[in-house]
Amino acid sequence: EIAAAAERMLDGGPRPLAGKKAIVTSGPTHEPIDPVRYIANRSSGRQGHAIAAALAKLGADVTLVSGPVEIPDPAGVTTVHVERAEEMLAAVVAALPADIAVMVAAVADWRVAAAGTQKIKKKPGEAPPPLLLAENPDILKTIGHHADRPKLVVGFAAETQDVEANAREKLTRKGADLIVANDVSPATGIMGGSRNSVRIVSRDGVDAWPDLAKAEVATRLAALIAERLAALP
Amino acid sequence: EIAAAAERMLDGGPRPLAGKKAIVTSGPTHEPIDPVRYIANRSSGRQGHAIAAALAKLGADVTLVSGPVEIPDPAGVTTVHVERAEEMLAAVVAALPADIAVMVAAVADWRVAAAGTQKIKKKPGEAPPPLLLAENPDILKTIGHHADRPKLVVGFAAETQDVEANAREKLTRKGADLIVANDVSPATGIMGGSRNSVRIVSRDGVDAWPDLAKAEVATRLAALIAERLAALP
Repeated sequence: EIAAAAERMLDGGPRPLAGKKAIVTSGPTHEPIDPVRYIANRSSGRQGHAIAAALAKLGADVTLVSGPVEIPDPAGVTTVHVERAEEMLAAVVAALPADIAVMVAAVADWRVAAAGTQKIKKKPGEAPPPLLLAENPDILKTIGHHADRPKLVVGFAAETQDVEANAREKLTRKGADLIVANDVSPATGIMGGSRNSVRIVSRDGVDAWPDLAKAEVATRLAALIAERLAALP
Repeated sequence: EIAAAAERMLDGGPRPLAGKKAIVTSGPTHEPIDPVRYIANRSSGRQGHAIAAALAKLGADVTLVSGPVEIPDPAGVTTVHVERAEEMLAAVVAALPADIAVMVAAVADWRVAAAGTQKIKKKPGEAPPPLLLAENPDILKTIGHHADRPKLVVGFAAETQDVEANAREKLTRKGADLIVANDVSPATGIMGGSRNSVRIVSRDGVDAWPDLAKAEVATRLAALIAERLAALP
């Protein structure tokens, strides 16, 4: 283990996740309407990318599945780039088995039911066609109930109202061990910003963290994940 | 005109558009669905930004109205940042009067009829709600028929089929002097790429330009605009 020893010397910190595999999703998804239009979510990928980096720093072998973002791939992490929710799910499933899954991406709940291969033309004097939507796969729920379910499954819940109640409901329905809930109301500035204010919801209760830099949220969450994983049978 | 002489010395080239004002639009628009979702167009802003810079290089006083892009504001140009089509139109009208308008932005034809102030919740077991759309203002057509219409109005037509026929029809309906038509079918790689292959459609006919770097398309178009403007009464 000369390489591991060298990494420890370079890094300095403890590596409680050495030998563990983690899958992290990050960023938005883009769902095509036609060749020139798409539906997107507001997500910079900063929180998800920071979590991938923080898990790697604790020694985990991390696969990051990222939607379209403008920030660089984190160092020391295997990054897979996808666009649509269905592609993101396929990439996450392909990365199984894993010990840890942290689903941070703001995945589109819906895609366009029949995305066009030609640009939809505006017809003068005619009302625009309604966009018919189809439900996207629920990536967190799929992984939370998968035959190859990672030991520790963490989801994110971006809400603008009833943040905690929605997070508690997601915990059971999606088969997650932890839900990181945050209020993404525009007034909070969290979407696209560099800070985050989260509540950690588990079967043990709710832990409200103070307002922190996204990198610090990532460091604390990675430490909590290492602690929870060590406590599992 | 010491400043103008100094600029000529720095730049070297002729400044046939000195004293002329130009408005250029660039990039996509983002139309909100709710606080976390939006409809977008694929547009990097590279072609529009290059045209703004090329017009400035020929001496024009350029206002660039840009949707959300990841590229820097061009030097020597006044850039106004907007998100929605309605904001873009307001910024263009606010920049009138002008001698030249070059409408390059990929403006969303439609916005969401009633964008929500709360995140739309997915209801398990229920079909997703259809997105009802409303027609956005047509910025090119509004400027082409404006009381303060610039002497030279140039539009872009991004098409995936019947490129030339669609461009000819737009010329008259939108009140433009020139339409720059390009085929944005995904196979062409033009959207988001660094090259472009355009046809210049005017009442005089069609001029097909070779495949060129977007910066070269911008330089040629700025020269054509200067030539056309000089020929006007």
